[in-house]
Amino acid sequence: MSESDGKVSAKDTEEVIMEATFRALSEHGYSELRMRDIGDEMELTRQVIHYHYDGKYDLLSSFLEYVIDQYEGSVEVKADADLRTELDARIDQCLFGPEFGEFTHWDRMKVYHELYAQAQNDDRHREIFNEHYERLRGSVVEVIEAGVEAGVFREVDAKQMGQLITDVIHAARGRRISLGHEDAPEQARRAIDDFVLDSLEVED
Amino acid sequence: MSESDGKVSAKDTEEVIMEATFRALSEHGYSELRMRDIGDEMELTRQVIHYHYDGKYDLLSSFLEYVIDQYEGSVEVKADADLRTELDARIDQCLFGPEFGEFTHWDRMKVYHELYAQAQNDDRHREIFNEHYERLRGSVVEVIEAGVEAGVFREVDAKQMGQLITDVIHAARGRRISLGHEDAPEQARRAIDDFVLDSLEVED
Repeated sequence: MSESDGKVSAKDTEEVIMEATFRALSEHGYSELRMRDIGDEMELTRQVIHYHYDGKYDLLSSFLEYVIDQYEGSVEVKADADLRTELDARIDQCLFGPEFGEFTHWDRMKVYHELYAQAQNDDRHREIFNEHYERLRGSVVEVIEAGVEAGVFREVDAKQMGQLITDVIHAARGRRISLGHEDAPEQARRAIDDFVLDSLEVED
Repeated sequence: MSESDGKVSAKDTEEVIMEATFRALSEHGYSELRMRDIGDEMELTRQVIHYHYDGKYDLLSSFLEYVIDQYEGSVEVKADADLRTELDARIDQCLFGPEFGEFTHWDRMKVYHELYAQAQNDDRHREIFNEHYERLRGSVVEVIEAGVEAGVFREVDAKQMGQLITDVIHAARGRRISLGHEDAPEQARRAIDDFVLDSLEVED
């Protein structure tokens, strides 16, 4: 578990740059962002950015991975929870997010959704998003499949249902951010319950 | 129905500018777009843009309204269709879009979704999107309410269901554009049928 001083320091520097990027993006938005805005948000000299990253594009790709890691790394579900509870927890996590560190779930999602819209023009970002999307949907599908297999959920196409739920989560977050619908995540939660999940459980 | 020559000409000029904006956005994306890129896409002198619009921002707001008008103006549902058919047609229209003019549904949606993600930083765009969203969701809710009233659909919270459907449509379009999931609209269509609409119809 011991790391050389040099390695620790490089890791710290990268984190400082990532946090500065977060602040700069929150303030200026993606389309207006300049490297100097990121430099203005940190105490280190701007040259360290150029040392670690091969331009704005490379920096933003690393930043996207950083945000996604933070988001995925924090899913917590009790091991002894029943499957519906586990499904609920995973959906809540995506909709309402974990809170930790300097930035809120919605600070992270704001940046995430802005980069998502840009991914059409960007193969590397698209790939990062696709892998993330796959994992998110997979984590919902997995629980539905387990429930069907255990006979507590009715027979459904788990992949199709997992996709539907992932789409609704994504759209609700986007509505809150882009249109200012503060209650979009709660609305989505109720709709998923009423129209999708409540029909899933097998009656005793 | 007669218009002065001057008026017709102004209208034509605006359309020329809007089409040039479309081409420039498709090529450069929102974040890279400069006024001169729009000028390069038309035969008229660049000065006419500055005559008609008060800068890039004003131009893009008018452009957004132009795209939305095109999209909404073309919904066609037969007057004698039953309510489920009408609901299907409205959903298909949003998912697969009308095809007309120089640009395809997906050319339009590409620009639409890019501006949507930017709306968080832009009150005027946000308002335009909110009004549009309201009309889209309203057009789905209206048919569900009519069906419930006529007794052909079961009693549901039509607003909640209309919201869910609108969210799924939006997310599927976004996935196709941002993540390159070509079959996202078809997947969404089947999921809406299987998990939402099929439970709506009252059995005889």
